Amino acid sequence: MSLTRPAGEFAALLDNLRDFIDNEVIPCEDLANAHDGEATQRIAAALQVSAKARGLGAPRMAIPEGGLGLSWEECCAFLEQAGRSFLGPVTLQCAPPGQPDVAALDKLASPAQRQRYLAPLVRGDKRSCFAMTEPAPGAGSDPRMLATTARRVDDGWVIDGHKWFITGGMRADFAIVVARTDGGVSWLIVDKGTPGFEVVRDVPTMEPFDTGGHAEIIFRNCKVGPDALVGEEGKGLDYAQLRLEGARLFHCMRFIGLASRAMTIAQEYAGRRESNGVRLAEHQMVQSMVADAHIDLYAARLMTLDVARMLDAGQSIRHHSSMAKVFVSEAVNRVADSAVQICGALGVSEDLPVSMILRVLRPFRIYDGASEVHRSAIAKRALRHGLSA
Amino acid sequence: MSLTRPAGEFAALLDNLRDFIDNEVIPCEDLANAHDGEATQRIAAALQVSAKARGLGAPRMAIPEGGLGLSWEECCAFLEQAGRSFLGPVTLQCAPPGQPDVAALDKLASPAQRQRYLAPLVRGDKRSCFAMTEPAPGAGSDPRMLATTARRVDDGWVIDGHKWFITGGMRADFAIVVARTDGGVSWLIVDKGTPGFEVVRDVPTMEPFDTGGHAEIIFRNCKVGPDALVGEEGKGLDYAQLRLEGARLFHCMRFIGLASRAMTIAQEYAGRRESNGVRLAEHQMVQSMVADAHIDLYAARLMTLDVARMLDAGQSIRHHSSMAKVFVSEAVNRVADSAVQICGALGVSEDLPVSMILRVLRPFRIYDGASEVHRSAIAKRALRHGLSA
Amino acid sequence: MSLTRPAGEFAALLDNLRDFIDNEVIPCEDLANAHDGEATQRIAAALQVSAKARGLGAPRMAIPEGGLGLSWEECCAFLEQAGRSFLGPVTLQCAPPGQPDVAALDKLASPAQRQRYLAPLVRGDKRSCFAMTEPAPGAGSDPRMLATTARRVDDGWVIDGHKWFITGGMRADFAIVVARTDGGVSWLIVDKGTPGFEVVRDVPTMEPFDTGGHAEIIFRNCKVGPDALVGEEGKGLDYAQLRLEGARLFHCMRFIGLASRAMTIAQEYAGRRESNGVRLAEHQMVQSMVADAHIDLYAARLMTLDVARMLDAGQSIRHHSSMAKVFVSEAVNRVADSAVQICGALGVSEDLPVSMILRVLRPFRIYDGASEVHRSAIAKRALRHGLSA
Amino acid sequence: MSLTRPAGEFAALLDNLRDFIDNEVIPCEDLANAHDGEATQRIAAALQVSAKARGLGAPRMAIPEGGLGLSWEECCAFLEQAGRSFLGPVTLQCAPPGQPDVAALDKLASPAQRQRYLAPLVRGDKRSCFAMTEPAPGAGSDPRMLATTARRVDDGWVIDGHKWFITGGMRADFAIVVARTDGGVSWLIVDKGTPGFEVVRDVPTMEPFDTGGHAEIIFRNCKVGPDALVGEEGKGLDYAQLRLEGARLFHCMRFIGLASRAMTIAQEYAGRRESNGVRLAEHQMVQSMVADAHIDLYAARLMTLDVARMLDAGQSIRHHSSMAKVFVSEAVNRVADSAVQICGALGVSEDLPVSMILRVLRPFRIYDGASEVHRSAIAKRALRHGLSA
Repeated sequence: MSLTRPAGEFAALLDNLRDFIDNEVIPCEDLANAHDGEATQRIAAALQVSAKARGLGAPRMAIPEGGLGLSWEECCAFLEQAGRSFLGPVTLQCAPPGQPDVAALDKLASPAQRQRYLAPLVRGDKRSCFAMTEPAPGAGSDPRMLATTARRVDDGWVIDGHKWFITGGMRADFAIVVARTDGGVSWLIVDKGTPGFEVVRDVPTMEPFDTGGHAEIIFRNCKVGPDALVGEEGKGLDYAQLRLEGARLFHCMRFIGLASRAMTIAQEYAGRRESNGVRLAEHQMVQSMVADAHIDLYAARLMTLDVARMLDAGQSIRHHSSMAKVFVSEAVNRVADSAVQICGALGVSEDLPVSMILRVLRPFRIYDGASEVHRSAIAKRALRHGLSA
Repeated sequence: MSLTRPAGEFAALLDNLRDFIDNEVIPCEDLANAHDGEATQRIAAALQVSAKARGLGAPRMAIPEGGLGLSWEECCAFLEQAGRSFLGPVTLQCAPPGQPDVAALDKLASPAQRQRYLAPLVRGDKRSCFAMTEPAPGAGSDPRMLATTARRVDDGWVIDGHKWFITGGMRADFAIVVARTDGGVSWLIVDKGTPGFEVVRDVPTMEPFDTGGHAEIIFRNCKVGPDALVGEEGKGLDYAQLRLEGARLFHCMRFIGLASRAMTIAQEYAGRRESNGVRLAEHQMVQSMVADAHIDLYAARLMTLDVARMLDAGQSIRHHSSMAKVFVSEAVNRVADSAVQICGALGVSEDLPVSMILRVLRPFRIYDGASEVHRSAIAKRALRHGLSA
Repeated sequence: MSLTRPAGEFAALLDNLRDFIDNEVIPCEDLANAHDGEATQRIAAALQVSAKARGLGAPRMAIPEGGLGLSWEECCAFLEQAGRSFLGPVTLQCAPPGQPDVAALDKLASPAQRQRYLAPLVRGDKRSCFAMTEPAPGAGSDPRMLATTARRVDDGWVIDGHKWFITGGMRADFAIVVARTDGGVSWLIVDKGTPGFEVVRDVPTMEPFDTGGHAEIIFRNCKVGPDALVGEEGKGLDYAQLRLEGARLFHCMRFIGLASRAMTIAQEYAGRRESNGVRLAEHQMVQSMVADAHIDLYAARLMTLDVARMLDAGQSIRHHSSMAKVFVSEAVNRVADSAVQICGALGVSEDLPVSMILRVLRPFRIYDGASEVHRSAIAKRALRHGLSA
Repeated sequence: MSLTRPAGEFAALLDNLRDFIDNEVIPCEDLANAHDGEATQRIAAALQVSAKARGLGAPRMAIPEGGLGLSWEECCAFLEQAGRSFLGPVTLQCAPPGQPDVAALDKLASPAQRQRYLAPLVRGDKRSCFAMTEPAPGAGSDPRMLATTARRVDDGWVIDGHKWFITGGMRADFAIVVARTDGGVSWLIVDKGTPGFEVVRDVPTMEPFDTGGHAEIIFRNCKVGPDALVGEEGKGLDYAQLRLEGARLFHCMRFIGLASRAMTIAQEYAGRRESNGVRLAEHQMVQSMVADAHIDLYAARLMTLDVARMLDAGQSIRHHSSMAKVFVSEAVNRVADSAVQICGALGVSEDLPVSMILRVLRPFRIYDGASEVHRSAIAKRALRHGLSA
């Protein structure tokens, strides 16, 4: 809990948010057009106006810069509420890639970059994307395979490379490009429209309610100025790691909200639907799924909160955020899968959002480090340093 | 194995089918338009022509009636091949609801019904649907809650009721309607266009490549003649049970093919994609998923085959088909989920079909009796009759 | 954290305990005689003397009464350390049934009962048992089936009934007997040696290092005085519920320690044993088990700690302690099972304690409410009160 | 099915066996003394006499040599029946290591070895052990790490090495020793009592009803004659692989029987024990465990039978026996674990055999190739040869 904020103030903020999500955002979810990114974006834009009018906005950003100035711990409750709707995070500037890009630029951007990129990003006037992932044989789950290069020239850098699956890339005003330079791996900002920055296509995915797409982008002899470098040359992989750690914690928070919503829908269904003469709620096999969902999300919240407090305390979260990410990503999938199962045919229909929730959550076991990559890293650390389980 | 068919002949049929699926059907899968039922249907219709030209068609139907006359055991291999493509079963008249309706009418139809409904169904000239499921509080997983009625009048029956999630209903030329009559639960055939037979809408689902939809249908004072009755009055629930037992075995067969294809794609990907300096195929966590897929499908095939042989031998499959259905439906989901995971971001993209395969397979844990319903039935039978595990 | 205790003091206590467990208790574990309750008891008695000399003792009991006066939160760390050895909890008066009986009597005992039973229990001079469970058709997982009766007579009570699986009953100096009275279900204390209190036998179990056994006890016309009643008549089921809630939290704490030790042994083994040219630690399938153990115990500790804090804050833990109990009991089983698997043949041998740890942990999925009973209770509460997961 | 044996004859044999197991063997299981190998051995010896009187004996061995001459397929049913009792396989000469040693010697032994070792082994007059496993850093899960050597001298071989976990070694009359020779890895028979053949101790394990122990054996300058060599020099690893393939199939068969028995006991308990006003059998969470046990063992039997038929047909079972071993070993563990859970406190007590069954089954996930080793081998084969799942 932030030490300086009166407890009542944060509670009121949460009430405001809950009301907004329940009464404005969720009613705007258009399941029948969930596959239409353009339509979704228009709805989100309208909701952003309402959010601002309610004083709701980017949760982690400092108040003078237009954010709510929440601690990481406070973000847990905020993001969970926001995350209950497909449209909540994008409406409140806490969806990826915007939120982690804001966090990263807040630490790394030069004064000029702050003014040109960070400020409009926080206000919601510009959109970013983080161009790291590459198609095989480039950087996928292993960032050391990075193939994109940025060659230094007299008056800047020339970028060449092939990026893929760049979340938000279809609608981004600028990209933070991760590329090899002489000094190692570095970050460079490239504005949309720069010659040689070609958005090839949107890679379609199983996720509904996607507003920014997952772009395939080619950089061909793409020239940027010397001020395009973000932070220090050669520190790009460290920066990416730090960006990811915060990003995946935000995912955990908001996806707990989405999974919780799926189970709430399933519980309501189980409470009214009968089978074999009794309500589904009285069937123990349904109860078993309900109980496991409560247990899973109880653990998921505690782990997310624990890592958030570590961040607030300035501690390294590398090990613990990996553990939380693996657990939460798999837990929310189990919960959403059970919600679908409890709702039966209605669950696989799109009359209810539960199967769409499952489709939004499934990729999280892969994004930001697949479970397998994290498990291996967790274990190697434990085995190397003799950490007790 | 059919006792009368030369082994070589069936092997040649399978080779023909495999060639057809690999070289004609799979290349026609249009992932980018998988959500467009009309487009999918047009493609399937064209493929049906090719299939007929190759001598491929409804596998279980007797040869004089236009089918291939395969035994249930032979169908296992045939359907698995056909099932490797999203479009295979519908192309080969072995997709639901057509296949089980053919099987049911072959046993129950009067001579007039055979001529008017069964024959064109086998030829692919007409399409059917099986109108049993109802919205709450009607018949869902518990058929005894059936609310639709068919009142006998002088010259036939008058049907009133609300059906929902009727697979294939959007494109069906006639419906087999399950309704309460004075004599119990009965089956009646209703032609599309009959006054009072109103297809309200297509219930959208998470499944791509759906050609016939899942219709919501209302029968309001819908009058049919005395010859609409299928089989005997009052035996509708028994008929439905028998229809389902065969239907779910066909699902098992074809979905094993689809899951196997997903893992084959994943294995190919793992064989070429590198991470941390070695191919994914050398990572034990990937190997673990691959091995489990092989084990799961090995068991799935053996169970499906065992039940098929019981059907060929004229034995009751009620207990064993329930066990096979639970195992196979869950196994193919695990396999497809692992295939998505192995393929990483590419796996959740729609550049590959694996996430679509997962979306086709997920509902099978619910359709034709949810896992929970079957588990309860299996256990009750075991406990009541003292069957050893 | 206790508000009154200096942080350094508690840390020193933990260091003292860790040193005691590592250097005195674990070296005394005699795996070859783990099945000999008498021998184990002799070892534990000797260790108790050392513990007292180090100032270590009953953690929860108030300091003036001879305990350490730890908060529930502090107990989490204390019990985890103590629990790393099979012999730790019994040595430190925090094994069942003593610890929960102390806690219950501390709340319910009359002044005379405090002096006669509680004080010697805290000092380790007497041993108790809690006689509630009955053989079928009596009270097992459902306490409402309680069949034992206590009939009021002029000068006290006459108890008749059959108890079974009474932990610690083989060595107890007195029993707290749960019985039906006119006023409902009540608690009565019965001294060993009271006529009609017959310890029939020790029910053998899969658990090694068992010091007090699981007694089968018959009460036949067993006469006790009016002062045998504990607390109020008719409140026995509520008392039992409260006793259990604390007891199962103590189990969670100490079994986390035991499971953690099993995995530490497995990690050490994996770090030195080679297979296929590399150390087991480098095999991803081993890493996967190690990582899951770390994740499982991370979540287990957080849930246990959260419930402990609720107890310290005077909140009801009924719902949350059920969730923690289910999760922790299953998590520690997974961890111990993986430790066995990693250690291979050595893991199933009794040269290492890991298979014995598994055997100690397995019953915890049943004791103090089987997972199924808790899952049903959790879900019913959630469904009835509309609690979100 | 054996082509030459009348079906009725085999059915009669099975009836005979079932009667023997139910009415003679199971009643002799002395749970209270299950840890006493000597006592168990005495009981087994007495039962062997009864078995012979009934015409029951070594199932796979040819009839002229004193066996029953069953096909592998027939062994599935025979071993499952025998396996229902802890004492069945040892009584019927089909427990390891005897059974696979008989099978191996039947293929490899010289005429002199047949007479001296094989014949008395089949009759039950002698006992063998297979000395391959070594303590770290020798041959554990990876046989290529074999450290024991057999140096050729003028008149035979001199063996030096350290063996460990040699099943049956405490009671064996001779050992088949796997050792490195100049020509590769070879097998040599060593009689008990040969100078330099020292049985150091019995490695204790979690398994009850163990008759032959798991010996630690040291060979120091142990001299054997030239006729000690079994089969050809240098083929020891291939022989070991073949021996293991058959051995693990036998394990599968008999452990299916043991797991089935555990669940039968649990079903009977669930049918009579009440909780919350209804019998356990009516609780869906219990039904779920019962159903899964039936499904698991249905699949387990089909896989075992399929591999047995492959053996009868002379096909290589390397790939399929690995798949069956992984599935069956894990399935029987799940089933036994559920049986314990259903029986509650009685399940962890030793009043019932279910927790002992769990303890016998747990090591099977490690013995004869740990699940991880098989999974890796299965996947590598699939990935290398492009086998579809």
